[in-house]
Amino acid sequence: MVELVGSLNLDTIHAAHQRIRPYVHRTPVLTNSWLNDACRATLFFKCENFQKVGAFKARGATNAVFALDDETAQRGVATHSSGNHGAAVARAAKLRGVPAHIVMPSNSAKVKIRAVESYGAQVVFCEPTEESREMKCAEMINKTGAALIHSFENEHVIAGQGTAAMELLEDVPDLDVIMCPVGGGGLLSGTAIAAKSMRAQVKVIAVEPENADDAAQSFRAGRRLLTEKKFTIADGLRTNVGEPNFGIIQQYVDDIVTVSEQAIVSAMRTIWETMKIVIEPSAAVPYAAIAERVVDIESNRVGIILTGGNVDLDALPWNRSSDR
Amino acid sequence: MVELVGSLNLDTIHAAHQRIRPYVHRTPVLTNSWLNDACRATLFFKCENFQKVGAFKARGATNAVFALDDETAQRGVATHSSGNHGAAVARAAKLRGVPAHIVMPSNSAKVKIRAVESYGAQVVFCEPTEESREMKCAEMINKTGAALIHSFENEHVIAGQGTAAMELLEDVPDLDVIMCPVGGGGLLSGTAIAAKSMRAQVKVIAVEPENADDAAQSFRAGRRLLTEKKFTIADGLRTNVGEPNFGIIQQYVDDIVTVSEQAIVSAMRTIWETMKIVIEPSAAVPYAAIAERVVDIESNRVGIILTGGNVDLDALPWNRSSDR
Repeated sequence: MVELVGSLNLDTIHAAHQRIRPYVHRTPVLTNSWLNDACRATLFFKCENFQKVGAFKARGATNAVFALDDETAQRGVATHSSGNHGAAVARAAKLRGVPAHIVMPSNSAKVKIRAVESYGAQVVFCEPTEESREMKCAEMINKTGAALIHSFENEHVIAGQGTAAMELLEDVPDLDVIMCPVGGGGLLSGTAIAAKSMRAQVKVIAVEPENADDAAQSFRAGRRLLTEKKFTIADGLRTNVGEPNFGIIQQYVDDIVTVSEQAIVSAMRTIWETMKIVIEPSAAVPYAAIAERVVDIESNRVGIILTGGNVDLDALPWNRSSDR
Repeated sequence: MVELVGSLNLDTIHAAHQRIRPYVHRTPVLTNSWLNDACRATLFFKCENFQKVGAFKARGATNAVFALDDETAQRGVATHSSGNHGAAVARAAKLRGVPAHIVMPSNSAKVKIRAVESYGAQVVFCEPTEESREMKCAEMINKTGAALIHSFENEHVIAGQGTAAMELLEDVPDLDVIMCPVGGGGLLSGTAIAAKSMRAQVKVIAVEPENADDAAQSFRAGRRLLTEKKFTIADGLRTNVGEPNFGIIQQYVDDIVTVSEQAIVSAMRTIWETMKIVIEPSAAVPYAAIAERVVDIESNRVGIILTGGNVDLDALPWNRSSDR
């Protein structure tokens, strides 16, 4: 894997873009004058909340499934995911006409299970622990011969995720900064390769919840640290950053900063209210760093990847407390 | 007024478009494959929720304020509104550099009062009744010499609202049907004139909450009936249809249908979840008629005006009941 990741560059991201183009949206880039005034900068939001399956994950999963040779693909694909990646792999497998086995924790939200099943994939339940997920997935792979499509430690997934930043820089070439959240690091590593290859002087800044700050700690320490996680509303970002991803991050990323839970909820609400779009908590994390002035972007042109829009409308974070 | 309305045509709507173009957004038209599959038609959503002040009202108010001659404009403008029209008039007056007096019921939401004040307008409070609103507004006009910008019984407001349908038909010329909600009828009358002038064979269908169905009843009776209103979540549509507006509606509109409160809430939620955009209840009313199969649009190309996106995120309709 590490060797394969070494071969990731703008060409592989271009190839990914060609491969997935028939199956995913070229999402719009939105701006908002109120937000620009509030932070005294010009923000360009790449709206992956409007992407197929409601998240950027459609890019990487589609690229990885379609990059398989026919013989391998026929044996099917497998992954473990409680979130958007599972649905994205299930959808890509359906588009390619091959079987998919998605390992999900038994306590997953019903709406997420139904989403995966709606693409005709087999849902395999496991205990809600990292170990159980990986074991169950390995078991399925042994039994079926399916290919593992890991959600971030996979070169084709990384290249696919990098296509979002590529499109953003095609649409707005003169960005000073690109920001995205970091969880496992699939999006961040793809974004960083695309951004630095297309525009050497652009700054790549990642943002992480302070309750799940392993990437920020690792980045400062110069080596990968696995930290204990507290609860974060940005559930897509609880994962520890992957090993190959961290290598790319060390090479290309300028900074990783953290934000509080309160800042994330407030940023999410601000974006809903001003931009009139639905984004999930993880997608609000970069703007939270701007609103809290954790990053200095004054007068800059800043690209922000809004990662997804899948939220449970019955459990919005501002309805959970009575402090408003 | 009735005579003035007689002069409304595609030319006046074009002139409105020229006049307001520097001050309002040309909003995007969105489509969604899931919704298309669900209703077996092709839906084109004109996203006025992304409009300035968060609603199509910016169009009519801006046109009316900028259509005034200089001498009249200098004396200021006035209106009564508890909603988006008040903010739209306040904003237009600020852009033109003239005073604005906005009469609002004393029980208006604080966020709406602040919105009007943020444009530098004078907020004048009244009792929350139609009579009190009109009396207070007349009082302000007598005192200041301000020009009344009525929210729908005004030819320039109607022409301005018509620019949304005009843009929609420019972007998607081969529509079979155009749908919008009806309250006072400003949007509907402007939409109908624009649509029928640009494409004679297009059907114009309006939708109204059954709890505020005066326009539907009037349309069937062939004369304007003022009905008693029950509560509707689509608060923008509680108003009785205006007299000049009804004349235009009788001439150009093909049908007015009604939908239940439950259908409105469900349609609003479906659009949030599938399209990942924030719309207000009134904006969901046309899609509610489609989802409930109150209108037959199978295989048609249907334009829908999403009127606005101003909602109180602390009081979403699906959080009010415990039936989910």
